[in-house]
Amino acid sequence: MEFLKAVTAQQALEIVNAIPVSLHTEVISLDESLGRILAEDIVAHENIPPFSRSLVDGFAIKVKDAQGAKETNPALLYNKGEIRVGEETKAVLEDGSCIYISTGAMMPGDADGVVMQEYTRRMGDAVEITKTIHKGENICFTGEDIKLGSTALNKGKRLNPFDLGVLSALGMADIWVYKKLKVAIISSGDEIIPIEQQPTPGQIRDINRYTALNMLKQTFSDVSFIGIARDNPEDIKEHLVAAREYDVILVSGGSSKGERDYITTSIEQLGGKILFHGINIKPGKPTIFATMWEKPVFGLPGHPVSCIMVLTRFVLPLIRRLQGDEGGEQKRATGTLTMNIPSTYGIEEYARVTIAYKKEDCKITPLFAKSSVISSLSQASGYIIVPEGREGFEQGEEVVAYYFD
Amino acid sequence: MEFLKAVTAQQALEIVNAIPVSLHTEVISLDESLGRILAEDIVAHENIPPFSRSLVDGFAIKVKDAQGAKETNPALLYNKGEIRVGEETKAVLEDGSCIYISTGAMMPGDADGVVMQEYTRRMGDAVEITKTIHKGENICFTGEDIKLGSTALNKGKRLNPFDLGVLSALGMADIWVYKKLKVAIISSGDEIIPIEQQPTPGQIRDINRYTALNMLKQTFSDVSFIGIARDNPEDIKEHLVAAREYDVILVSGGSSKGERDYITTSIEQLGGKILFHGINIKPGKPTIFATMWEKPVFGLPGHPVSCIMVLTRFVLPLIRRLQGDEGGEQKRATGTLTMNIPSTYGIEEYARVTIAYKKEDCKITPLFAKSSVISSLSQASGYIIVPEGREGFEQGEEVVAYYFD
Repeated sequence: MEFLKAVTAQQALEIVNAIPVSLHTEVISLDESLGRILAEDIVAHENIPPFSRSLVDGFAIKVKDAQGAKETNPALLYNKGEIRVGEETKAVLEDGSCIYISTGAMMPGDADGVVMQEYTRRMGDAVEITKTIHKGENICFTGEDIKLGSTALNKGKRLNPFDLGVLSALGMADIWVYKKLKVAIISSGDEIIPIEQQPTPGQIRDINRYTALNMLKQTFSDVSFIGIARDNPEDIKEHLVAAREYDVILVSGGSSKGERDYITTSIEQLGGKILFHGINIKPGKPTIFATMWEKPVFGLPGHPVSCIMVLTRFVLPLIRRLQGDEGGEQKRATGTLTMNIPSTYGIEEYARVTIAYKKEDCKITPLFAKSSVISSLSQASGYIIVPEGREGFEQGEEVVAYYFD
Repeated sequence: MEFLKAVTAQQALEIVNAIPVSLHTEVISLDESLGRILAEDIVAHENIPPFSRSLVDGFAIKVKDAQGAKETNPALLYNKGEIRVGEETKAVLEDGSCIYISTGAMMPGDADGVVMQEYTRRMGDAVEITKTIHKGENICFTGEDIKLGSTALNKGKRLNPFDLGVLSALGMADIWVYKKLKVAIISSGDEIIPIEQQPTPGQIRDINRYTALNMLKQTFSDVSFIGIARDNPEDIKEHLVAAREYDVILVSGGSSKGERDYITTSIEQLGGKILFHGINIKPGKPTIFATMWEKPVFGLPGHPVSCIMVLTRFVLPLIRRLQGDEGGEQKRATGTLTMNIPSTYGIEEYARVTIAYKKEDCKITPLFAKSSVISSLSQASGYIIVPEGREGFEQGEEVVAYYFD
């Protein structure tokens, strides 16, 4: 019995990528926006900083007035007072004068540099400048951080702490983001029991619920666990119907096309359409992808490692895209492989690895274990994709490993 | 006016690392434990899986009975029934027989391999096996994932989704973790206003509050914003006293040792001890580190980029350690530098960079901007540390960049 609609990894990605995106927006407060996806270009409505500021404590000067100044030949300038931070100044420098200025304070008119305090000596009403500075030194100019009218952040950006810094600089206390996707997780299998129960012989505890749910937290979607479905069409259909209001449905287990696998028939009986059943990948082959009620449905492999790899390679990217995330690059590292990774030609294989740096030297070591063995993943920092067209990688090769998020 | 107690980056790390750790534990539910730090070694009280299981749908056999079997010369075995998932089996295989078994089901006694369904043909009461398999093929043995009595996870591990998989396999619905650290953030500066306010000339909005707070979320500590302190000893002391019940206190701004900087004197007047004031780093020099009320206090630079780099290099690692995190490696990448990074001998410098992979090729590009410019960080994926002993890096060099978390 073969997988009827088995596809290559590339075909699977194309089918998954063809799912159309339908975005909805909402306004949230900046305090809650870490990890959320920006739904509007942020165009600066003011200059940041809104005025030229000193970057140091020292004296604002006209740079030409201290041309050639040095420790043994200081320039002497008249001290015309002080500008405190937080205050507006209307002061304008005259030739041969200077004004004491604190870090962050507003520059006086006609000054074009700030000499750091350590290169100055107060002499009564005058100040000795013991260093020559260049034009613009120690000034952050009006709009140098963010220019009025410029696009400070682009729509589709996943907001990191620094982006929140940009938004706070602009005073954006409330921002438009895309709504979170609601994701439903269903576990399935007659052998699966909730973790609080003691398994009788033949039973095992539900692992995929916890790994999937917590991996999905990285996408900042709204994830709910629906329950454990038994291996019969009625119970599977009942659980699918209970997930009907969600945007994406994930069912783990029961997709290996054995005699007692009812996921595909249940989906079809509910009017869904199977887009593929089986991907030429390892681990993760028995993966189902369907659309039902105009939403994507994944049948994930029951083996924990397979389930995690399919989530990583196919599900999380889809969820990010459906949330409007035009997202950054995946973190990865280049290093020397410490062992051979054998692989089958024609199958895209995933090797879980440790990534260990010693100073500049990066060693990447595969962790070999069966797809049912969750404990090995606990040590993994990332994974290597062995493409279809390769029969593995050899010890000593330079390879690129992706970090798990 | 010089920094009185300026130290090197290494000295600063040593001083910060000397802060003693005092850990407290609590029990939480597995559902809430992502990112938390395990406070106990997890020793397996049972084997996982608790029984040998089939990894595929197919026929459990004695491997010797199908020795040499192939498509053109199948072995014929008697089908003795079926084992369903979730059920206990007491069946024991006799020579020359086989039993149909589903993925995840319990292996019958004396079987030592499972032939995948696709390599079998049912012939009435008999089954043709068309492939030779090796001993143990397609079986996950009792304890192969986690062995009874073995340490499945170590104390001090920051729990990732896969660790939660391990804990769920073992049925650990409640686990001991270290308590979250309570971290207080205070902004300071006469020019700083809350982001909801419109700045008058000379004022700017509070950026560091948002970047610091959201960077700290990565450590899963409990972060609170206390308020904005004005540049006078009374207000600073009032805010410090308000943060007294917290485990770590962070004050941004007001640490540059100008004439109006009151952070160090306020700490000393409250009985605190300044351990250093100034680190030979760039950006980030005007950093204060103190102990007060037996807790660590950081005075962070006011410039947003400086503040972020000091948080990254000195503060987050301390907070992780004080929470018991014996922590994994920092994510990093090796790549080719696309531009020179100039740097001053004797100062540890931090260059913000983009890290861009094109297939196997990784290019690392510095983003040059003043330490007050937050917008550049929004593009950065990581940073390079230029050590004290180097005058920068040259275009074309292989360098290691750290990812921002």
